[in-house]
Amino acid sequence: MLSGGDDGVPDGVPDGIGMARLAWTRLPTADAEGAGPSTSAAAAGDELFSAAAVESLDYEVIENYAYREEQAQRSKFWVPYYVMLKWLFSLLIGVGTGLAAIFINLAVENFSGWKYTATFAIIKHSYFVGFFVYTVFNLALVFSSVYIVTNYAPAAAGSGIPEIKGYLNGVDTHGILLFRTLVGKIFGSIGSVGGGLALGKEGPLVHTGACIASLLGQGGSAKYHLSSRWVRIFESDRDRRDLVTCGCAAGVAAAFRAPVGGVLFALEEVTSWWRSHLMWRVFFTSAVVAVVVRSAMNWCNSGKCGHFGAGGFIIWDISGGQEDYSYQELFPMAIIGVIGGLLGALFNQLTLYITKWRRTYLHKKGKRVQIFEACLISLVTSTISFVLPLLRKCSPCPQLGANSSIECPHPPGTDGNFVNFYCSKDKEYNDLATIFFNTQDDAIRNLFSAKTFHEYSAQSLITFLVMFYSLAVVTFGTAVPAGQFVPGIMIGSTYGRLVGMFVVKYYKKLNIEEGTYALLGAASFLGGSMRMTVSLCVIMVEITNNLKLLPLIMLVLLVSKAVGDFFNEGLYEEQARLRGIPLLDSRPKQVMRNMNAKDACKNQKVICLPRVSRVIDIVSVLRTNKHNGFPVVDCGQNGESLVIGLILRSHLLVLLQAKVDFQNSPFPCGPGVLNRHNFSDFVKPASSKGKSIDDIHLTEDELGLYLDLAPFLNPSPYIVPEDMSLVKVYNLFRQLGLRHIFVVPRPSRVVGLITRKDLLLEEDGNTVMAELQSTSVRGLLNGRLLGGNAHLERPLLDNLVIE
Amino acid sequence: MLSGGDDGVPDGVPDGIGMARLAWTRLPTADAEGAGPSTSAAAAGDELFSAAAVESLDYEVIENYAYREEQAQRSKFWVPYYVMLKWLFSLLIGVGTGLAAIFINLAVENFSGWKYTATFAIIKHSYFVGFFVYTVFNLALVFSSVYIVTNYAPAAAGSGIPEIKGYLNGVDTHGILLFRTLVGKIFGSIGSVGGGLALGKEGPLVHTGACIASLLGQGGSAKYHLSSRWVRIFESDRDRRDLVTCGCAAGVAAAFRAPVGGVLFALEEVTSWWRSHLMWRVFFTSAVVAVVVRSAMNWCNSGKCGHFGAGGFIIWDISGGQEDYSYQELFPMAIIGVIGGLLGALFNQLTLYITKWRRTYLHKKGKRVQIFEACLISLVTSTISFVLPLLRKCSPCPQLGANSSIECPHPPGTDGNFVNFYCSKDKEYNDLATIFFNTQDDAIRNLFSAKTFHEYSAQSLITFLVMFYSLAVVTFGTAVPAGQFVPGIMIGSTYGRLVGMFVVKYYKKLNIEEGTYALLGAASFLGGSMRMTVSLCVIMVEITNNLKLLPLIMLVLLVSKAVGDFFNEGLYEEQARLRGIPLLDSRPKQVMRNMNAKDACKNQKVICLPRVSRVIDIVSVLRTNKHNGFPVVDCGQNGESLVIGLILRSHLLVLLQAKVDFQNSPFPCGPGVLNRHNFSDFVKPASSKGKSIDDIHLTEDELGLYLDLAPFLNPSPYIVPEDMSLVKVYNLFRQLGLRHIFVVPRPSRVVGLITRKDLLLEEDGNTVMAELQSTSVRGLLNGRLLGGNAHLERPLLDNLVIE
Repeated sequence: MLSGGDDGVPDGVPDGIGMARLAWTRLPTADAEGAGPSTSAAAAGDELFSAAAVESLDYEVIENYAYREEQAQRSKFWVPYYVMLKWLFSLLIGVGTGLAAIFINLAVENFSGWKYTATFAIIKHSYFVGFFVYTVFNLALVFSSVYIVTNYAPAAAGSGIPEIKGYLNGVDTHGILLFRTLVGKIFGSIGSVGGGLALGKEGPLVHTGACIASLLGQGGSAKYHLSSRWVRIFESDRDRRDLVTCGCAAGVAAAFRAPVGGVLFALEEVTSWWRSHLMWRVFFTSAVVAVVVRSAMNWCNSGKCGHFGAGGFIIWDISGGQEDYSYQELFPMAIIGVIGGLLGALFNQLTLYITKWRRTYLHKKGKRVQIFEACLISLVTSTISFVLPLLRKCSPCPQLGANSSIECPHPPGTDGNFVNFYCSKDKEYNDLATIFFNTQDDAIRNLFSAKTFHEYSAQSLITFLVMFYSLAVVTFGTAVPAGQFVPGIMIGSTYGRLVGMFVVKYYKKLNIEEGTYALLGAASFLGGSMRMTVSLCVIMVEITNNLKLLPLIMLVLLVSKAVGDFFNEGLYEEQARLRGIPLLDSRPKQVMRNMNAKDACKNQKVICLPRVSRVIDIVSVLRTNKHNGFPVVDCGQNGESLVIGLILRSHLLVLLQAKVDFQNSPFPCGPGVLNRHNFSDFVKPASSKGKSIDDIHLTEDELGLYLDLAPFLNPSPYIVPEDMSLVKVYNLFRQLGLRHIFVVPRPSRVVGLITRKDLLLEEDGNTVMAELQSTSVRGLLNGRLLGGNAHLERPLLDNLVIE
Repeated sequence: MLSGGDDGVPDGVPDGIGMARLAWTRLPTADAEGAGPSTSAAAAGDELFSAAAVESLDYEVIENYAYREEQAQRSKFWVPYYVMLKWLFSLLIGVGTGLAAIFINLAVENFSGWKYTATFAIIKHSYFVGFFVYTVFNLALVFSSVYIVTNYAPAAAGSGIPEIKGYLNGVDTHGILLFRTLVGKIFGSIGSVGGGLALGKEGPLVHTGACIASLLGQGGSAKYHLSSRWVRIFESDRDRRDLVTCGCAAGVAAAFRAPVGGVLFALEEVTSWWRSHLMWRVFFTSAVVAVVVRSAMNWCNSGKCGHFGAGGFIIWDISGGQEDYSYQELFPMAIIGVIGGLLGALFNQLTLYITKWRRTYLHKKGKRVQIFEACLISLVTSTISFVLPLLRKCSPCPQLGANSSIECPHPPGTDGNFVNFYCSKDKEYNDLATIFFNTQDDAIRNLFSAKTFHEYSAQSLITFLVMFYSLAVVTFGTAVPAGQFVPGIMIGSTYGRLVGMFVVKYYKKLNIEEGTYALLGAASFLGGSMRMTVSLCVIMVEITNNLKLLPLIMLVLLVSKAVGDFFNEGLYEEQARLRGIPLLDSRPKQVMRNMNAKDACKNQKVICLPRVSRVIDIVSVLRTNKHNGFPVVDCGQNGESLVIGLILRSHLLVLLQAKVDFQNSPFPCGPGVLNRHNFSDFVKPASSKGKSIDDIHLTEDELGLYLDLAPFLNPSPYIVPEDMSLVKVYNLFRQLGLRHIFVVPRPSRVVGLITRKDLLLEEDGNTVMAELQSTSVRGLLNGRLLGGNAHLERPLLDNLVIE
């Protein structure tokens, strides 16, 4: 589902558009200065030269662009405006994501509440009718979800995290950040989670946050008529990615009520684009989410939200649990880590196979198959979760202390342990129903609960583990929004509690809580499957609100991740690879050690465009290959060829479609060309496939004309010498988030050497500023002396090239 | 205190040594293959060519180096050994730092305990004698600290964080990671903190952790006779920096018992070097620290540690505090943020001026002045903290509930609120003494305490604030180990509690706790002074063990950092600049927008060395300038000049000193030269100034000889075209942690274009591997065809250059 192109990446704005932009904005000044066409051309050359120097990482340019556009006076307000808007958007992302999370939770809890209240009411009379109602309720919800997704928002299926991860790594997947995806995600996950499938709402919330962020960022697209000033500000790729990073963090913060965890999640997934001032903004967004969610929870505590009470949100306060641990316990905890690693790796492998099979055989057959599949899984899930507890014998209630807050059996219609389900006596409970015939949030709370020794039998836990694990594997990959956090926690806490039971039995210590082991189990499974480290640890601490278990969670995560890494990659990486999202690892591959830059592109034929190209040549170049960027060459002062920059396919397409720049002469154009374009023409349309060469129709006459590419190219893409190690190139590529690197022959001379000292300009800022001004004057003079007066006929960009 | 050189950075291993290393390790093979000297030279050229391809970021190379050194069989064990050792070292760093933290805390608490017990015992009889004893005790401790620091470990003065920050940013400061610095830091901070100065032990602990890490990393230097295998492994600059990063995180984790805070602290300070697998190792180290510290605390809880009881460590559990907040309270909280920003910025500015003045006028006069200064400050501090409470009238004890755990006045010799000091009645307490005449940890605990409404009068708090703020400003910069965390918390919590008092008074709500406001005040001052964000927030949460206040702390930090940033830079940045540590900001300066690469180095004269240079020329080049790196040029196949790499001053000095490579002929050497050297010759001596050209003495004869530089240079430093924007160059430089960039003319052609797809080799790993093998064979053939047989007399590296 990538939008085509040789490198899997449609059009790299970070490499791209700077020069063009700056050129337009600067040239009016040049025009005003120029005394005649030729002089003005020379001056324009200098202007371009300076403009080229300004070209930089994209978001820097954007500031510069507008900074220059509105001249001196207005520019004073622009930067503060831009900064303010960035923060305002961060605020809005936080509020929006928080509200979306509240809405989803509210809906899910209420649907589940009605479902269980009705079922429990009916089974007093007939278990069969109860089963029927329960199943139909689930089926209806799941059907609504899968119908919405398959028909309106196919990109909303799954958790969305691999796609978002890909987006932040630099790969756009079609449709993941559309408005319809947002809507599909929200309503779809209400259906799928409310319908009792073995999946969670947390992954989708991350995607939801990202969608909200992206939509805010492009606010002002054709559909929403916002002011054009707004559009301009966030049209750079980097700004958008920054916003999506904020949205991603906001999603995690909202899903788990874990603001710090959200920041760290975004950080762990996006290290390649990370900057410390972005961290600060992400942090702010997360804090806003925390405040919004908390306010809503407080409002709901007064009972205005139906079944959504204090227990609705994913947060399992285990403050009553174990505060301490002995060194003996570290061994069973390590065992939990190992189990988590093994089961997590197995989960990744199984889901990979099943998803592959689904994609190859099942989902090709159309929407109906997908809908049928989801409904079938819903039926199976309902049946298992209803029938299995029926087969289980009830246990008598334990003797609880008088001042214990736990009731056995707990009153129907409320949350809690000790569910009375198909029991012959009143003072009995069904341990399998307590975890199986319940919402997942409640089940987890029950598994984590302290002071409930021996509530569950080993048999029930094993039954549940096997069944739920299988359901989770099968459910993964159906066409509904689905997160893997909550199922993972369910699975992990089951075997964790099992281990805890053995520990309680054999170590015979009173201060050991099975619930603590359940928590560690949950951490271990997530670690073994998703392979996140610090962020997962913080999220676990934040959702359980217990800092004292931090070292234990760290230990378990270390073990489970190490074990899992032995077998395969993390869940998101596996899924991303399966979906054809080419993520770049943080570490270069071993094989790159023995390669150099030239080896990496040895099978390529580099297609260069001359500075002034014939339209027909450009069209044929675009038709005959799928490259997304083309080097542009020109003749230097002494007739030798010189690489003057990189032009992107997408920009060429814009130029071909606009046609206004076509010219009759094969000589470089004057500066007038530059204000024929609106900057926004070149902005990549958000979340669409972009143009294709086949959509552009040119007449015979037009094909015979010429096009001067100089004003539209990126004049200084990064270059590497051909014999540089590929590992070095890889680091350059990934650390700077590039799209294209030119591999060039070894240079013949060194003009200068830049060291740390040369980059420390702030130490005598004023001096540098003064020097700089004189430099630019000198540069102008030099330019004129060297190339200007003597070579009036020479191409416009010669100064740029030769200087 | 930099170790010389044009760029403030002695010798950049990341740029440097790879080629040399690889060349040696590969060439023996080439020798074995070669049929005669000339053929072998050609083969060696190819070998070098491949070796060049492998050169990469330093730590990659190291693996490769040994990987090849011990051939096929042994290499199987080497990588696991290397990885295992890295983890073992992380473990050891954690254990070491944890133990150091325990030791410091134990010593400080015991000294303070003895001091206060003795003083309280004596003042029952005479306040004058008590004052005398108190002052002499403090003076003795401070004197011991300043004596140790000035005489044995001058680098141990101050917090050490700016220096460590600089180190991790790429700047080595002389002496900061020596063993004597470690010892000086540990014992010095015991003296200075135990002596009651207005400073903390947390900053020094970060430095301590870094020292431990660095010493472990170089284990096997001349002093400690460890096996040489160990040395080799961690002699790369990058490995060492990784270890120091771990140590830094361990220090924070140990100082605050905040493992996640430690990871984030390291992350915020070191983003430019950050990689996600390093994060994992740092995380492990922090977890180890947490376990070690917790074990020691448990052991001490049984009373074996003297005065070091439960209250010894910096951790202020405010679990009894406010759980909730109303929206009305957000306004006073924002006010706290503003105050924090203002006072923090003022603190930075004042300390900057005072430190400047000290460096210029005071500390030039020698050690005695420094010792005298510290003792004087100790006397003043003792006097103020003893005499001021004497002047304060005691207040009657409040009515406390029967089941309250708080006693008034608290029994002498224990920690707690309500200190009875110079009070006429038994049931009275002195509120100023409660915070002033106490250890800082206890004072903070008292300020943070909940359920103690109106314990302090506004008058006392203001008095304390003014006096302590002044003391902290004056104390900063004396020649003792000194952290700013605890003083910052003291200052912040004072005005925080003041604001809290007003809120309690005017809002008239019962669930508002003054202690919570004190905590927010502490966060705000630290935010306003140090300008850390996420890490500070997490540290505050971890030390107070209260997750629920997270959004409030976030809010306060956001405000205070924004206010502070309006005025000046963070404390550490200011201090680093003052000490001449050239930190590179994460953001390029505004002025760079208008500059290009050439502008940045326009005043430089680039000094190139020919491939085979005369020794006398090299010596004169090294004598006449201070550059640390020199481009090496050679003649290409067609006689044109070609840049073949970068050679470092330090490597040249090693070669000049060793003399073994000097040769009579001005032609390139054979491959035999390469195993004349031991790799470790070239490793930068840890924490020393390195060699100087003046230390090397050569005879007339030797000066007339030649030296072939090709085997020792870095064949592919990063290059940028001369008209690239300086912003782009800056990002390249900082993100990749470079030391040198070559500025070169625009390339004349593009050999290839590397895109994401070219770097995704793992998708068909086997194919790539197979292709690669054939490529390397083909490369060899090509090399021979092109340059080998036909040009046997041509320089060795031509293949490298022309291919």
